[in-house]
Amino acid sequence: MAFAHKESLENNPGLQATPDEATKGYFLQQTMFRIKDPKVSLDFYSRVLGMSLLKRLDFPEMKFSLYFLGYEDTASAPPNIVHRTVWTFGQKATLELTHNWGTESDPEFKGYHNGNSEPRGFGHIGVTVDDTYKACERFECLGVEFAKKPDDGKMKGIAFIKDPDGYWIEIFDLKLIGQVTSDAA
Amino acid sequence: MAFAHKESLENNPGLQATPDEATKGYFLQQTMFRIKDPKVSLDFYSRVLGMSLLKRLDFPEMKFSLYFLGYEDTASAPPNIVHRTVWTFGQKATLELTHNWGTESDPEFKGYHNGNSEPRGFGHIGVTVDDTYKACERFECLGVEFAKKPDDGKMKGIAFIKDPDGYWIEIFDLKLIGQVTSDAA
Repeated sequence: MAFAHKESLENNPGLQATPDEATKGYFLQQTMFRIKDPKVSLDFYSRVLGMSLLKRLDFPEMKFSLYFLGYEDTASAPPNIVHRTVWTFGQKATLELTHNWGTESDPEFKGYHNGNSEPRGFGHIGVTVDDTYKACERFECLGVEFAKKPDDGKMKGIAFIKDPDGYWIEIFDLKLIGQVTSDAA
Repeated sequence: MAFAHKESLENNPGLQATPDEATKGYFLQQTMFRIKDPKVSLDFYSRVLGMSLLKRLDFPEMKFSLYFLGYEDTASAPPNIVHRTVWTFGQKATLELTHNWGTESDPEFKGYHNGNSEPRGFGHIGVTVDDTYKACERFECLGVEFAKKPDDGKMKGIAFIKDPDGYWIEIFDLKLIGQVTSDAA
């Protein structure tokens, strides 16, 4: 017999059956958070996590810059600077880092809030890797700070690392994630 | 002559030229934030933004549930519940909503923090749409709250709407984004 799976409409009040035609082509393009120092964050996201700088936008009048990072190959980016912006905003799953100028050298700057202590809200971004344990060994060698190592707690094979501002990044792989979460599935 | 474009290594201290081979295959899979009431959020993200519920995970012992939403077609999801988890974690650009049970009916619950007032940190997610003005007209008809309407401020053609918990969602399209940000490119 048919059983109502966890994602069914009857199990999820509020959920709509079919996306409105008007939303066709929509995609989740970016996640933005603020960073203290682009030098440190660019190093972390490119060297440690392997992202590329897809596009940078500078707003001198308002004294901030935006850094769009992602896993796209920038060799396929168009050379024209405006076309490159459009190309970037046409990519799914990019990270937008906002740098308000001056925080990197301001002794009064208290840092940004990662959302995991009060007041809570945002939790983390998550990166799928090939092998969580192998990836975490490398992160350890690179001196990355962990919020949870893969063997801490109940959820073996899932880790949380911290970026230079203290934002959490979940690390998991497709070989383990199904098993680790099977009781919850 | 060659000019050093904005995304060049020399313009971006900290940036690494080539992703480490160890990071090959990594992708940005999820962005997580906490929500008060899944009924309200599922309605918003499916009806207003056209997302589907890719996977739900329930953790009764710890009294929370996770809702993974995205623009993938769930018709292509495998029927097996664990395989569906793996399928979900194999998709780029999903939104993970965390519901700590009970907040939806707790009169003492103060709500979550969207990161755009002190203490700041997380800013927003962003959805690429076909036509910002058309999309925003529809959002207005649906009673969506705006943080910025497309013609407010300097950045014409970019809007920010609010989800039911007050998180900001940037709305833009590929026809306008290049021109709107051209001075910054």
